[in-house]
This record gives sequence, C-alpha cells and structure tokens, in this order.
Amino acid sequence: MSNSLNETTTLSLNYNNDGLIAAVAQDVSTKEILMLAWMNQEAFEKTLETGEAHYWSRSRSELWHKGATSGNVQRVREIRIDCDQDAVILLIEQSGEGACHTGRKSCFYRRVDSKNGPALVFIDA
Amino acid sequence: MSNSLNETTTLSLNYNNDGLIAAVAQDVSTKEILMLAWMNQEAFEKTLETGEAHYWSRSRSELWHKGATSGNVQRVREIRIDCDQDAVILLIEQSGEGACHTGRKSCFYRRVDSKNGPALVFIDA
Repeated sequence: MSNSLNETTTLSLNYNNDGLIAAVAQDVSTKEILMLAWMNQEAFEKTLETGEAHYWSRSRSELWHKGATSGNVQRVREIRIDCDQDAVILLIEQSGEGACHTGRKSCFYRRVDSKNGPALVFIDA
Repeated sequence: MSNSLNETTTLSLNYNNDGLIAAVAQDVSTKEILMLAWMNQEAFEKTLETGEAHYWSRSRSELWHKGATSGNVQRVREIRIDCDQDAVILLIEQSGEGACHTGRKSCFYRRVDSKNGPALVFIDA
C-alpha cells in the first residue's frame, strides 16, 4: 500500500470532503495529548505563518486562533504529518490554564471503564 | 460552552455524519503517537470486547482488526475520551515492527520544514 504520498518530501495535504484534516495537539515537553481539532488550508497556513495554532471551528464555521480570547495560546514547536498526509501532530507549548474549554489542561480527562457499563471515570489531573 | 457531555460519566459517543469518531493510538510507555484512524460503533465495541484495537477502514469500507494479517496488533491498556465525546485516545502496546503500513513504528515520521517551501523532512526513527 506504499505510495507516493508516503515517501515524498513534498507537502501535499489530503483534505477530506469538508476540506479538513485532523490535528492533534501534544505537549512538546510531557508528550501529553491535549486536544484533537480540525484544520482547513487557511488554518494550516496561518499556523505556519504565525507559529501559533489555528484551527477550523466546526461549531462556529470560522477560523479559530486558539487562545485569542482566553489567552490560552499554543506556541507550535514542530508539526508532524502522517503517511497519507491527512493528519498532523502539533508539538506545542500550551499557555494559560490549559487546552480544554472546561478549564482543564487536556480535553482527555476521562477514561472508559469497560467493566462497568461501559461508563466514564474522571482521571486525576 | 460547558455542557452535559463534558461532565457526565455516561458514555455517549458523538459520531459524525459518517458514523465515525477519530482515534489516536499512543504508545502507553513512551507516549509517542503512533497513528490516527477512525472508529465506528462496531469498531469501538469490538475494541472494548477484545482488548485489541479495531478501526473502520475508510479506504476499504470495512471493520479493520489492526494487525490481524500483519501481526502488528495493538493491545489496548486504556481508552480516554475527550470533552465532547467525539475523539478517543487508545493507550496501547504495539506488537511487531510498528503501527505504520510503511513498516515504520509511527505514521508521523515526517515534520514540516516551514522555512523551505514548506517541505517535509524525514525524522530519524
């Protein structure tokens, strides 16, 4: 299944039918995954240009400069791209209290307890 | 923007219009992100039931038991879910040579060099 997208040094992002790629924000120091969001081409280019994470807000249908209002900006230290060029990792320094709109550092603050329902269990921060 | 999905212990996955959620596979020991794939309800339930990662293959339109043919299975140690319940992290132990179909450990083996095009640079494994 290896193809030209896998081995090229040419950036050729593979946007989905909605014009989006998945973007995972990972703390560059701790390697904790902080959030998963979406980028369109404009968001990706703004992120490269400014060094701060920009996403596409699907709920608001607008470009979203993360932290522009809250101060919780994400300084991007490195961007990694996957084999088929439809997902990226942003290795970031998170400013402020955290990445999650609930006030938590990470959006992934619950785990699935499969023995019990399944149900969710809050993880201690 | 806090709502009932954010603070509940009830699992209520928020599948998209294609019936999918994003799933990030992260090495439980090193915290390296190995791949990003997709799950439908059946894939999620099979993962819980078997303890091995199952995804939905969008290219083949079928349930995909990761490693069933290659031997590169992913033993799932924990599943985390995000605030709005439309993305999960699988904390896994990766068997075999790695997660990527190119033979690499991680699918994220290239970084974006923004000074140069932008272009892609291969990261040493």
